[in-house]
Amino acid sequence: MNDVSMINSTSSSGASGGASEQAVALDQTMRTMGKAARAAAAELATQSTQAKNTALQAMADALLEQRNELLAANAEDMAAARERALESALVDRLELTDSRIDGMVNGLLQVAQLSDPVGEISDLKYQPSGIQVGKMRVPLGVIGMIYESRPNVTMEAASLCLKSGNAVILRGGSEAIASNRAIARCITSGLEAAGLPLATVQLVSTIDRAAVGLMLGMSDYIDVIVPRGGKGLIERVSTEATVPVIKHLDGVCHVYIDSHADCEKAISIAVNAKTQRYGTCNTMETLLVASELAAELLPEIGAQLSAAGVELRGCPATQAILPDCELAVDADWATEYLAPILSIRIVESVDQAIEHINCYGSRHTDSIVTEYLPNAQRFLRAVDSSSVMVNVSTRFADGFEYGLGAEIGISTDKLHARGPVGLEGLTSQKYIVLGEGQVRK
Amino acid sequence: MNDVSMINSTSSSGASGGASEQAVALDQTMRTMGKAARAAAAELATQSTQAKNTALQAMADALLEQRNELLAANAEDMAAARERALESALVDRLELTDSRIDGMVNGLLQVAQLSDPVGEISDLKYQPSGIQVGKMRVPLGVIGMIYESRPNVTMEAASLCLKSGNAVILRGGSEAIASNRAIARCITSGLEAAGLPLATVQLVSTIDRAAVGLMLGMSDYIDVIVPRGGKGLIERVSTEATVPVIKHLDGVCHVYIDSHADCEKAISIAVNAKTQRYGTCNTMETLLVASELAAELLPEIGAQLSAAGVELRGCPATQAILPDCELAVDADWATEYLAPILSIRIVESVDQAIEHINCYGSRHTDSIVTEYLPNAQRFLRAVDSSSVMVNVSTRFADGFEYGLGAEIGISTDKLHARGPVGLEGLTSQKYIVLGEGQVRK
Repeated sequence: MNDVSMINSTSSSGASGGASEQAVALDQTMRTMGKAARAAAAELATQSTQAKNTALQAMADALLEQRNELLAANAEDMAAARERALESALVDRLELTDSRIDGMVNGLLQVAQLSDPVGEISDLKYQPSGIQVGKMRVPLGVIGMIYESRPNVTMEAASLCLKSGNAVILRGGSEAIASNRAIARCITSGLEAAGLPLATVQLVSTIDRAAVGLMLGMSDYIDVIVPRGGKGLIERVSTEATVPVIKHLDGVCHVYIDSHADCEKAISIAVNAKTQRYGTCNTMETLLVASELAAELLPEIGAQLSAAGVELRGCPATQAILPDCELAVDADWATEYLAPILSIRIVESVDQAIEHINCYGSRHTDSIVTEYLPNAQRFLRAVDSSSVMVNVSTRFADGFEYGLGAEIGISTDKLHARGPVGLEGLTSQKYIVLGEGQVRK
Repeated sequence: MNDVSMINSTSSSGASGGASEQAVALDQTMRTMGKAARAAAAELATQSTQAKNTALQAMADALLEQRNELLAANAEDMAAARERALESALVDRLELTDSRIDGMVNGLLQVAQLSDPVGEISDLKYQPSGIQVGKMRVPLGVIGMIYESRPNVTMEAASLCLKSGNAVILRGGSEAIASNRAIARCITSGLEAAGLPLATVQLVSTIDRAAVGLMLGMSDYIDVIVPRGGKGLIERVSTEATVPVIKHLDGVCHVYIDSHADCEKAISIAVNAKTQRYGTCNTMETLLVASELAAELLPEIGAQLSAAGVELRGCPATQAILPDCELAVDADWATEYLAPILSIRIVESVDQAIEHINCYGSRHTDSIVTEYLPNAQRFLRAVDSSSVMVNVSTRFADGFEYGLGAEIGISTDKLHARGPVGLEGLTSQKYIVLGEGQVRK
C-alpha cells in the first residue's frame, strides 16, 4: 500500500510549483504506482489460496480492531460533506455505521470462503496428435477501480481483486478520502500479515481529478478499468478510456407479461420489479403486456402501483384501460427513471416484445412471465441482454443472488464478461498443452 | 451480399464529384452496410443449426460449380499483381489453385460438422431463493474482418462467422478484389439456398482504403474487429480502432529446456519449433537452456540448426559453448525474426526462464521441456502467455491442432479470448434465470 508516499509526493509538488509541474509529478506518481502494481500482480498470480485467505481474514480482524479509528475518519468526511452541502443521498452513501463495518467484515469472510478461480484447469482433452489441450484460469493482471462516495466499495473491490489474483489501483471519491485511507490501513495490515506484496492494493489518495484521466490511459500498467458510480462518471470513463472497461451505463429493464402468463405471478413480479427498490439498475422501467391479458391485468397492477405512489405513463391502448395514466412519449421507452415512474406498453406478440426490448433496452436485464414453453425459449434466445429471465423479478440480477458470492460490477458489453461480474469475470483463460515430446510434422 | 450495390454506389460517387463528396458517399455506404449487418445478425442469432449447415454445404457446392470462374477472376488479380510488381511472397499467397479451392471446400464441410456453440446452456444451478441461474452462449453480433492478399480467408471468415451466428463485414486486400468478389458470389448463393439473410456476409468491394478507417470507428454497427495480415496492418488497426479488436501483434515464442529435461525430447522440440516453418507466429524465436544441460545439449542443437541454415545469436555463456555463434544484443530477445535466425540464452533456473519470457515475450506461445513435475507446474502457472506448453513444440499453437476445427485468428490480449480463436471465441455468454414466480424480498 503506497498510501503514505502518495500523499507526500502530491502535496509536496502542490506546494513547490505551478500547475504543469504538479501535472508532471502526478504523472510520475501514477506510473510508479502502475509499475508497483504490475510487479505485485506477477507475484500474486502464483500465490496460494491459503495466503490470499489469510490476508482476507487479517483484513477482517483489522477492521474490527480499528473500528473506532474508522468511525472517526468517517466522521471527518461526513462533517466536510455537510459543510460542502453535498446532496443527502450522497451523504447517506458516505456514512460508515457499526452495521456497515460489520457488513464489510462479513463480506471479507464470504470472499475468503469462495473457491479460488485461479489455476483451475478445464476441458483437458487429447487431440489426434497425442497432445492434451485444455484451459487454465488466470488473473487479468491489474484492475483500475474508479468509484464514488461509498467507502465500503474500497474493501469489496480489494477483496475480490485479491482473491482473483489481481493487483488493484483504487481511486475513490474525494469526499470519502479520510474513510478510504482508514480502510486502506486495514488492507495493508492484512497483506502484511499474510506476507503478500503491499502493492497488491494501492489507493490513489490525491484528490486531484487528473489522476482519473491518467488511469484511463495507462494501458501499459492497467489491464481493465471498472467504474462504479453515477452516470456522469461512467460516461466519462467510457468515452476517455483507452484501457478496456467493464461497465454498464443504463439499466432500462423490462418485464413482458405474455398472453400465456399466470396472472398471479404476473402481478407480483411486475409490482416487485418496480417497487422493491427504485434507485437500482435492475429495477423495471418499462412493463410490456400482451394485448390478450391487458384488460384483465392492468387495472390490478395499476392500482397496486398507484397505491405505492408510482406514476404511470402508457401507450394509447394502456390509457384506454387506465384513464389516469399519462401518455408515454418516445423518450420514455429509453429512459432509466431510477424513480417511482413506470412506462407501460401493450404489445401484440412475444416477437413485438422482443423487438421493443432489443430496440429501446440497455442490454441489462429483461424478464418474461409465461407458462408457455415455446415463448419462454424464444424470449431467452432472442433477447440480447446480459441477463434474460423467465418468471422472475428483474431485481434478482445481482452477484449474490446468482451465487457469485459478490460482484465488482455489472457488464452490459458483449466481449468478455456479461451480467454481474464476480471472481470469474476478473480472470480469463489461457490454453495449456501437455505432451510427451511431440513435434509438428 | 451487398456486393453489387456497393460497387455501384462507390463508382458513381467517384465519377461525379470531389474528394469530400466521395468521402461522404463512402461513409454513407459503410453505414448502410453496418445497418444491414445489424439486422441480419438479429435474425441470424435465432436461426437453426440446420439452416446454417445448409448454407455452408451450398457454398461448397457453389465453389465447385464455379471453379472456372474463380480461377479466371484470380488470374485477373495475379496479372495485375505482376504488373504492379508486388513482392513474390504476396503473389504466392494471392494465388488460387485447384488444390486451394478444394481446401476451401473441405474447410466449409469441416465447419458444417463442428457443433453449434449458439444457444448452449451451461452451469444451470438452483440458488437459495429457488431461482435457477445459468449461462447461454450467444453470438457477439457483427464481426468486422480486415485482411490482406489470401482470398481463401474470405471463405474461412464467412463460414466461421455464419456458424457462430454472427454477421460479418469483410474487407480484403485490394490486390485480391476480383477473387474476393467471385468467392462472395458463391457465399451469396449459399445464403440464398438456405433462406438466410444475404447481409449475413457483406464484402466491402471498394478499394478505397478509407473504408478501413471507417470500419475501425463503427462501434454502433460492429462489435469486434479481427485483423489478419502483416504487422503494419495489425498496428494500424490496434492504434486506430475504437471498436474492440481480437488480435496478436507479435509471436516472440520461447522453448525453455529445463535442467530436468529429457535430452532427446529437448533436441527434437527445439529443432522442430525453429525449423518446421520460419514465417509463422508460433515459431520459436528464442531458446532458453538451463545451465546444467547447456554444455551437453547446445553442440548438438547448434549443429542441427546450422545444418538447416539457421543463424545463431547467443548470450556470452552460449558463445563459450558455440564459438561460431554471434553475440545477441538486448533487441534480439524482443525480436520476432520470422526468419532462419535464433537467439539463445543460458539461464540458471526455471524462475529466470519465466522472468525472461514474461519480460521479453509477446504473450503468444511458450513451452518448457522437463520431466520434473514441480517445474512443469510452476511454468504453466507463471508464464503469462495465451498458450503455455510442456514437452511440445510451439508449432502446435493452432486452432486445428487444438481441436477448435478452425481459427479466425489468435489473440494475445487478456480480456475475452486468449490463444487460437475458433467458434467459441466468436460468442459470449449471457446469464439466464428460470423461476416459478419468485420476487425479491
